[in-house]
Amino acid sequence: MFCWLNRLYRGLSSPTGRTTQLIWGSLSRSLVLSSRRRIPEFSSFVARTNTCGELRSSHLGQEVTLFGWIQYRRQNTFLVLRDFHGLIQLVIPQDESAASVKKILCEAPVESVVRVSGTVISRPPGQENPKMPTGEIEIKVKTAELLNSCKKLPFEIKDFVKKTEALRLQYRYLDLRSFQMQYNLRLRSQMVMKMREYLCNLHGFVDIETPTLFKKTPGGAKEFVVPSREPGKFYSLPQSPQQFKQLLMVGGLDRYFQVARCYRDEGSRPDRQPEFTQIDIEMSFVDQTGIQSLIEGLLQYSWPRDKDPVVVPFPSMTFAEALATYGTDKPDTRFGMKKYLKRKDIESIRKVAADHFNQEVLPVFLKASRHWNSPVAEFILEKQSLELIRLMELQEEDVILLTAGEHRKACSLLGKLRLECADLLEARGVVLRDPALFSFLWVVDFPLFLPKEENPGELESAHHPFTAPHPSDIQLLYTEPEKVRSQHYDLVLNGSEIGGGSIRIHDAELQRYILATLLKEDVKLLSHLLQALDYGAPPHGGIALGLDRLICLVTGAPSIRDVIAFPKSFRGYDLMSNAPDSIPPEELKPYHIRVSWPADSEAEKSSLDHPHHPES
Amino acid sequence: MFCWLNRLYRGLSSPTGRTTQLIWGSLSRSLVLSSRRRIPEFSSFVARTNTCGELRSSHLGQEVTLFGWIQYRRQNTFLVLRDFHGLIQLVIPQDESAASVKKILCEAPVESVVRVSGTVISRPPGQENPKMPTGEIEIKVKTAELLNSCKKLPFEIKDFVKKTEALRLQYRYLDLRSFQMQYNLRLRSQMVMKMREYLCNLHGFVDIETPTLFKKTPGGAKEFVVPSREPGKFYSLPQSPQQFKQLLMVGGLDRYFQVARCYRDEGSRPDRQPEFTQIDIEMSFVDQTGIQSLIEGLLQYSWPRDKDPVVVPFPSMTFAEALATYGTDKPDTRFGMKKYLKRKDIESIRKVAADHFNQEVLPVFLKASRHWNSPVAEFILEKQSLELIRLMELQEEDVILLTAGEHRKACSLLGKLRLECADLLEARGVVLRDPALFSFLWVVDFPLFLPKEENPGELESAHHPFTAPHPSDIQLLYTEPEKVRSQHYDLVLNGSEIGGGSIRIHDAELQRYILATLLKEDVKLLSHLLQALDYGAPPHGGIALGLDRLICLVTGAPSIRDVIAFPKSFRGYDLMSNAPDSIPPEELKPYHIRVSWPADSEAEKSSLDHPHHPES
Repeated sequence: MFCWLNRLYRGLSSPTGRTTQLIWGSLSRSLVLSSRRRIPEFSSFVARTNTCGELRSSHLGQEVTLFGWIQYRRQNTFLVLRDFHGLIQLVIPQDESAASVKKILCEAPVESVVRVSGTVISRPPGQENPKMPTGEIEIKVKTAELLNSCKKLPFEIKDFVKKTEALRLQYRYLDLRSFQMQYNLRLRSQMVMKMREYLCNLHGFVDIETPTLFKKTPGGAKEFVVPSREPGKFYSLPQSPQQFKQLLMVGGLDRYFQVARCYRDEGSRPDRQPEFTQIDIEMSFVDQTGIQSLIEGLLQYSWPRDKDPVVVPFPSMTFAEALATYGTDKPDTRFGMKKYLKRKDIESIRKVAADHFNQEVLPVFLKASRHWNSPVAEFILEKQSLELIRLMELQEEDVILLTAGEHRKACSLLGKLRLECADLLEARGVVLRDPALFSFLWVVDFPLFLPKEENPGELESAHHPFTAPHPSDIQLLYTEPEKVRSQHYDLVLNGSEIGGGSIRIHDAELQRYILATLLKEDVKLLSHLLQALDYGAPPHGGIALGLDRLICLVTGAPSIRDVIAFPKSFRGYDLMSNAPDSIPPEELKPYHIRVSWPADSEAEKSSLDHPHHPES
Repeated sequence: MFCWLNRLYRGLSSPTGRTTQLIWGSLSRSLVLSSRRRIPEFSSFVARTNTCGELRSSHLGQEVTLFGWIQYRRQNTFLVLRDFHGLIQLVIPQDESAASVKKILCEAPVESVVRVSGTVISRPPGQENPKMPTGEIEIKVKTAELLNSCKKLPFEIKDFVKKTEALRLQYRYLDLRSFQMQYNLRLRSQMVMKMREYLCNLHGFVDIETPTLFKKTPGGAKEFVVPSREPGKFYSLPQSPQQFKQLLMVGGLDRYFQVARCYRDEGSRPDRQPEFTQIDIEMSFVDQTGIQSLIEGLLQYSWPRDKDPVVVPFPSMTFAEALATYGTDKPDTRFGMKKYLKRKDIESIRKVAADHFNQEVLPVFLKASRHWNSPVAEFILEKQSLELIRLMELQEEDVILLTAGEHRKACSLLGKLRLECADLLEARGVVLRDPALFSFLWVVDFPLFLPKEENPGELESAHHPFTAPHPSDIQLLYTEPEKVRSQHYDLVLNGSEIGGGSIRIHDAELQRYILATLLKEDVKLLSHLLQALDYGAPPHGGIALGLDRLICLVTGAPSIRDVIAFPKSFRGYDLMSNAPDSIPPEELKPYHIRVSWPADSEAEKSSLDHPHHPES
């Protein structure tokens, strides 16, 4: 269980993959030779000689000084000490001369912090614990010091104790001591470090910090506001450094990246955070293929050593194809599916379709006789059914779900039913979505615009207004803009969108036409960007990877909250510190704002429905 | 001028110093052998074969494709192309068959973006330019493409054109094309990358992101507020991750670091930014010496290769000594001083002291006769003057400035006059503060508390309330707390504080006593932290380095605004985008706030005094 740390750190500075070899070719041999040195010095600058978890038989006879937490005690004879690196068994001295040491180690409550010195000895034959990496040895304690005594805990630290998430978040500093949280946060740190090495050291990207106190972006709802000292003027916390990264390209920085904090106020949404992190990248003089190769190399290089290596290039699929074949723009390509369904499953699927999507679904069961068993069978000509069998590559005992309706809506329904079927089958023990399998997919050729939901006669950007149109569709911009495809690309992993980007518009006139004429946005808000495009903006493009989601998928964590040290609850509360909090009116004065307290009972009622800690 | 990039990147992944050798010993030879490979691949993923600045005689005969900006053109024959890497001369083809290429290159305005392909050739004998790293060669252009045409610029890009800072900030994307801004931002990125390698790869620190949407901290004035969707509840943007880093130690993360965005609303203050960056570090089981060694190693490892190497360990001085001998807690130790002053200088110094500090200063001129030339001479006994000469190690022709008064105030005055004298002397051409010299100094043993300015009978923390008292002074906490020294330490570079930290209190009782009894703070606001200390908090300490200030000193930039890509003006405005901006009232509604417009004429008058762009 505790071998993970060495595995995690072993990858450090020893790159893999194509790009790597260009730069590191001659180094790899030395790295392999000195592989034991690749683990960082965890005990530099402090008085410990070793971490608890690193001790092995090779340390036998060594005098060691350790710091750690008391994990548990057995019969006042053994004590298991824990640090971030692992567990080690201490032998509590029983002789009279060590009475004070014994007293400290026997009386300190569990989770107290101690410093011990002693000798690494072998465990008596037969008492080795093969499940523990340190299980062949133990420490014969000579001195001990109680550094901090622990009060009665609200829950046990051990991983197997089931806790509610609200309790875990309230006592986050205790939850962080768990194996899983230590692993998740260290893996995150490692992966980001390797991404930085790849971008900065191997490919000449410049890490540039951009402001988070910015201004409202056009159409940018969901932006937190920060009042300034000038009456009525507010900063906005941006959802991404989009404008800044483009301005950096205009500024000739050529290759930019940032592990960027972003903000989005979505109110209460499960598995979203008001602040989140993206690996933000922009390059000049690049095309879609260039960005895709860059990202494939980035993920390959930074992928944890304890997972199967990433295979590149990733497959690619157009948006139209993804919608038509998977019913979604983020297909989970780990499985093709649809077998093993029972008749009662089909009924439940038809019910889901009817209840949630108000749509009829017709199942077709293909029998050995090649005859269809379906309520719709009698309406389908034999020629049609043969064509369907050919198209769908149907095999005996297959089930088809048929529906009719507007293309996007019908596809989307079938896509959701596909996932529904996967749930049903996995509940029955059929492994369709192997958590150890990582299926990357590029989805490309998105539409540039979508009809506005509230007013389908008008257009809005499918992604953002800086996305460049597909070169083959430029002329359509002036005739049938709704048909224009974009140079946007999404990166999908196991059915989750983990990144998205595009080649941007670098021509000021085209940008003005799209903003003002097609989107009817107020161009004044973006005058600085439009002006920048006038002054020698290079062609450029980029991408952003959602770091929280990516790490969540890599670690197999059930929620992004498990890969963030101090996450907010789904209503945006910090259950540990109680943020957000009240501010006295006099402290709001310099910002020229006042609280508008909800006066009517309706509002009061709603505030009662949302007590302070709704999740606890 | 353009050799800088290679120098900057040459240090990449080739560490220096003590710690380094432990890990990298066997690698360094391979690194030296493959030194040409250590420059990152600046042309991966794009269609260019080379950057403009990297071409040399060794590329002679090669077919190259370049992207860049038109720097200038000579007689429709030569064109100098620029990218982030440097300049290269293009020869515009004159033959009829290349008329279209000639037209493109001769008609495109300066700062337009072009793509060119051609052959690297030698310049004709006598036409080499030794000032240009690419000056031995030029490109015989075969094809050219205009990628973006540049409109008439508001100012010339060339570095020698003097611009007002307001104009530079308004057109920041153009200003970023300058050599100096490219150098500053790339050096910053490089230094931070090397710091990360040192912390993460060599010493096992974990890079952990902490929230910026937090709650008000006790005594934390100057915090921006962010209204939430719950009426009257606000997030606060923290001035540092102080609480989180301590909670991470309680969580057993052992070694934390973060390049952390911090926020402080100081209204209008020169050379401060509302958001700034610190290298934030915390360790468990460490003492002051451990943190100091860590930081010395960090700076040594990350120091730019084009500067003199950092010598460690840094000297150390107590706060009392710094105040008594330099009159400040951040002495510029590059110079001792005080010679070469003229009589009229002394008069101007006495005037500064009287006008700004309301304090009398008495100059003493030591003559060859050992007699004092001073208005105060007649009041000083010969025995006293001899003692002074001995104490101050006075030499003939020396000048002493004497003052009397309350210790701290008098020392502080003399400290400021020392800098005043340095200014005077440097204006006369005496180099006292060599910008190429980096004098680091630790200042230690600060007082734990200071008397409150508005009410000297009460105490406030000299730094912050989590700072541990000096172990020798613990008992004074309960008798004479104003005399307690702390375990706080500041890192000073050339007279600027570039970092500060402390060993923290890990005992909940001690922390409660200091917060509630001595500081009279509302402990409820910190209940989560106090509780965390109860549950097995390890002894811990840390430090934060001010990154903007550090990079400013390293690059010799006149202002921190020159090492930040998109800084705010001294009133907190983004002169490029016009942030902060107005927000329509309906967008404030979800946050339950209203703008309190200043109603009285007084306020209106004051708002007229502060027009939108006061600096432009």
